[in-house]
Amino acid sequence: MRIKLVITYDGTAYCGWQRQKNGVSVQEIVEKAVEEVCGSRATVTGSGRTDSGVHAAAQVAHFDAECSIPPERIYLALNTRLPDDVKVVSSEKADDGFHARFSAKKKTYAYDFYFSDVILPLKDRYSLKLDVRPDFSLMRAAADVFCGEHDFAAFCGTGSSVKDTVRTVYSVDIDERQGGFTVKVTGNGFLYNMVRVMAGTILAAGYGEISPEDISSALESGKRSRYFKTLPAKGLTLLKVEYN
Amino acid sequence: MRIKLVITYDGTAYCGWQRQKNGVSVQEIVEKAVEEVCGSRATVTGSGRTDSGVHAAAQVAHFDAECSIPPERIYLALNTRLPDDVKVVSSEKADDGFHARFSAKKKTYAYDFYFSDVILPLKDRYSLKLDVRPDFSLMRAAADVFCGEHDFAAFCGTGSSVKDTVRTVYSVDIDERQGGFTVKVTGNGFLYNMVRVMAGTILAAGYGEISPEDISSALESGKRSRYFKTLPAKGLTLLKVEYN
Repeated sequence: MRIKLVITYDGTAYCGWQRQKNGVSVQEIVEKAVEEVCGSRATVTGSGRTDSGVHAAAQVAHFDAECSIPPERIYLALNTRLPDDVKVVSSEKADDGFHARFSAKKKTYAYDFYFSDVILPLKDRYSLKLDVRPDFSLMRAAADVFCGEHDFAAFCGTGSSVKDTVRTVYSVDIDERQGGFTVKVTGNGFLYNMVRVMAGTILAAGYGEISPEDISSALESGKRSRYFKTLPAKGLTLLKVEYN
Repeated sequence: MRIKLVITYDGTAYCGWQRQKNGVSVQEIVEKAVEEVCGSRATVTGSGRTDSGVHAAAQVAHFDAECSIPPERIYLALNTRLPDDVKVVSSEKADDGFHARFSAKKKTYAYDFYFSDVILPLKDRYSLKLDVRPDFSLMRAAADVFCGEHDFAAFCGTGSSVKDTVRTVYSVDIDERQGGFTVKVTGNGFLYNMVRVMAGTILAAGYGEISPEDISSALESGKRSRYFKTLPAKGLTLLKVEYN
């Protein structure tokens, strides 16, 4: 039987979702719990990698197993085996054709910022400190350029082996709030580091270091500018994965 | 010269503000930084204890030292010596008569709750999980009873050696938000564990376990009911300390 899980985690202590030789991954932590609960080893396939240190409010994954526990109660059994920084929010029976990665239609990530000249311990675990407030209209103009289908070759981290770098970004919202803001990106998929580079680029635009035209050019040429910084992992959270 | 500091910390790793024989306190961490920056040992006096695991957005403290660094820049020097979970937000010269504890007029604490049947790692560090949503009008009715000058003997933890248990609570606000709420309490001072017992009592009222009259009776008699639970430390944050 195929089981779909929705998983939330604080990524601080992990090398990311995917199994790695160095470091503990969220995937192996969940697989270990599945083995204990269902009595047999199973690969738990996520909707995609999240990088080392990136958080998830709702990562989606699936695995195949015969389990004596009813599907919709498996998450409770898993949670008794999981550490406090990795928990399963829900579990359900999925169609055999469901695949957490290949069936995913949309993903939404949020990158969070706060304004302060001092590291604020109560915010710093899930948010990036900015000494200077950027210009919001400049950021929004830059964000708009990313929307649509583009070749994002200039906006992914080095070390990515993906050949097709065309992705569709459905929306990039800049949500302002007291003392900070969030860049929320929804797309049909994201390249390695892509959201962190996009957020870094939008921030650079907010400081007037680059223009919307620079972003357009990079989307066309595939050439990365030195202003397209990859922001640290901790500000990034996978908010949701949507399926048909 | 007397220096006033505003300090923020994530209390998770500490045994509270005050020096203890067992465990590392925020006070000793700050005193060590002051010694390194100013070149002499000084006692850093806080506005009051915060319990083990309690957080602070703005604890206030003072110390006396002759320091070559201008008072308003001392916080920057301290921060280079402090760990990422304890930071000083500001520093300034204070009058010799200023005392972080005895000059304090008002303190505000917030106790935070979230609703979920599963521990949510991205919320659980600073908030308490509730499986069942309490009734907000019942909680507000209970909260109102605490306002004013009362003998809070029934609402402090055992182990307190304070003789005068009369305190004035200026306001108790229940701030609702998506997926949770915050109990915000302002008073002229608080007994040991008092805010955590008050928050636990308000919660019990929200579940219909006790009535506003039960709270009134306890304020009059000084007798603690078994429904006046002390909630865990992690949901509590010292928000601000006010002076004249």
